[in-house]
Amino acid sequence: MRIVLVGFGVVGRSFAELIDREARKLELDYGLRLKIVGIADQKGAAVSDEGIDPRKALESKTEKGTLEGLGAEVYTRGMKAVELIREADAEVMIESTPTELKRGEPGLSHIKMAMQNGRHVICTNKGPLAIAMPALIELAHHNDVMFKFSGTVGGGTPVLDFAKKCLEGSEIRSISGILNGTSNFILSKMAAEGVAMADALAEAQRLGYAEADPTYDIGGFDTACKLVITSNYVMGSSLSIRDVDIRGITEVTQEDIAKAKAREGVIKLIGRVGSSAKVSPEVVSSTHPLNVSGTFNAVCFDTHPAGEITLVGKGAGGMETATAVLRDLIEIRRTFTR
Amino acid sequence: MRIVLVGFGVVGRSFAELIDREARKLELDYGLRLKIVGIADQKGAAVSDEGIDPRKALESKTEKGTLEGLGAEVYTRGMKAVELIREADAEVMIESTPTELKRGEPGLSHIKMAMQNGRHVICTNKGPLAIAMPALIELAHHNDVMFKFSGTVGGGTPVLDFAKKCLEGSEIRSISGILNGTSNFILSKMAAEGVAMADALAEAQRLGYAEADPTYDIGGFDTACKLVITSNYVMGSSLSIRDVDIRGITEVTQEDIAKAKAREGVIKLIGRVGSSAKVSPEVVSSTHPLNVSGTFNAVCFDTHPAGEITLVGKGAGGMETATAVLRDLIEIRRTFTR
Repeated sequence: MRIVLVGFGVVGRSFAELIDREARKLELDYGLRLKIVGIADQKGAAVSDEGIDPRKALESKTEKGTLEGLGAEVYTRGMKAVELIREADAEVMIESTPTELKRGEPGLSHIKMAMQNGRHVICTNKGPLAIAMPALIELAHHNDVMFKFSGTVGGGTPVLDFAKKCLEGSEIRSISGILNGTSNFILSKMAAEGVAMADALAEAQRLGYAEADPTYDIGGFDTACKLVITSNYVMGSSLSIRDVDIRGITEVTQEDIAKAKAREGVIKLIGRVGSSAKVSPEVVSSTHPLNVSGTFNAVCFDTHPAGEITLVGKGAGGMETATAVLRDLIEIRRTFTR
Repeated sequence: MRIVLVGFGVVGRSFAELIDREARKLELDYGLRLKIVGIADQKGAAVSDEGIDPRKALESKTEKGTLEGLGAEVYTRGMKAVELIREADAEVMIESTPTELKRGEPGLSHIKMAMQNGRHVICTNKGPLAIAMPALIELAHHNDVMFKFSGTVGGGTPVLDFAKKCLEGSEIRSISGILNGTSNFILSKMAAEGVAMADALAEAQRLGYAEADPTYDIGGFDTACKLVITSNYVMGSSLSIRDVDIRGITEVTQEDIAKAKAREGVIKLIGRVGSSAKVSPEVVSSTHPLNVSGTFNAVCFDTHPAGEITLVGKGAGGMETATAVLRDLIEIRRTFTR
């Protein structure tokens, strides 16, 4: 299968590393022979019909910060991702540029270009989905390509697949989840150690769990993106992030935490969808399976008649998300070689 | 699809109730038109080529304790399940007689008879699988029928499906789980309230979570059955219950619980399979997702490279297990109408 990688950050590089390391196993177990025929980074793009050696691309990125180490015949500085997508002879485009929530760009344009040119799309970038998921699904149908995005929710924890493949015959009445590891780390630390929000946030930044501008995580926007994607995929809704009532954790105090504790509860940032979609700090019973600590994610499906079923795992990480991309590739390969 | 129910206890009756209630939805959503053409209970068997009305069967069972209320032309006292399986014109046999761990009977004979007569088999009885799972899978292959048993592990929580359908491309290094709700209820109660084992057990019996003879649950045998089934299905092993080193919770004391607590842990009855298979009380970190309370079940898959992924849900219950049977039916129908 011929692949174009658009975005060569943590996820893109982890994916390149994974398929290089597991090449033999992937071919033996799943009949997957993967060839990277193009990679776009922030500065330009590499194209090679014979395939780009993942290790060389990783080395160049580490040493030079770009892919120019692949040589001038392969790498063109200033070449845009949309050109690469249109011109490289690939079956699948993997979009892993950073999430942007105003217009979903540049991911949205990449995905459209790929679909219009008959490429299957695997996306780990939440922006285009938070903004325009129903339209993108329609475009994929229209162009008869697959559109997969397992890595957008739960990192390597297969939240979307689980709901779709394992809960058939059950009615899913609502979904509630801890979908942002950074916020959960901060709230867990505040509860366990009695420290203030600002100190817990500083620690999260020191450990690399939170960005210098933490608004996306602690403001509830990342949770809202994942809620939109999960709701649309699992419950058949047509939400965009504008439909979600969002409140983050910035105002949670030690007093709130103490009050919750007196009721044998903990405060968690919960994304919840049922009759409406909402992100806010909620009191969760301390014995409920959603009460996970540290950077864990947890998603609880309220099903009928099998009751509440909760899935817990690491919600982020480059290599973890790369496994989600790989699962999507395996499914594309299986669907198109039946 | 024409079905024979063998066993009309809690699971069999819940299933009859479920398909009666959801008949319209099952036909619309999955193209499933289900007809029960035979039911065996402990005293005899009912056969009807036109189909047995689930409500009438349930009424008769409630009022008379047997199916004789269906009328003498339908119900034959003393008719054996194996005769019913051989003679009724059905595509699927659902086995839900009680688990027996010495020889796996009578379930084992029922399953063999069904497969040899070309019936697909859905089994919620753990006995035949704990004793002879590899042989039964071979027999199913040989007769070109499907053999499904989702309801044997996790009740309505899709533990087996999850591992098989959602973890592709990942290596599962080990599986550890809380697989018996009764034991977990007792251990949770001992930890939360400081009561002795005997008192917690008495409470479990009063609430109907534990049998008069609780050995099967608290002796670790139920956990061992589920571990064997999960390991064979997910990790491709060929275990029987004789291969499992089994220690139950009967010797757990308040002193053990206090010691665990001092290490910020809790004692849980864990079934664990990796290089070997074992059931025993273990100290689990109190912040680990496996630390679930009450009658919950939890199964943790240690995957590479996506890390630990844990599934939590109710592990038992008639209606919950009936949803697992329904999922199996949907899968059989889909596989055989492709």
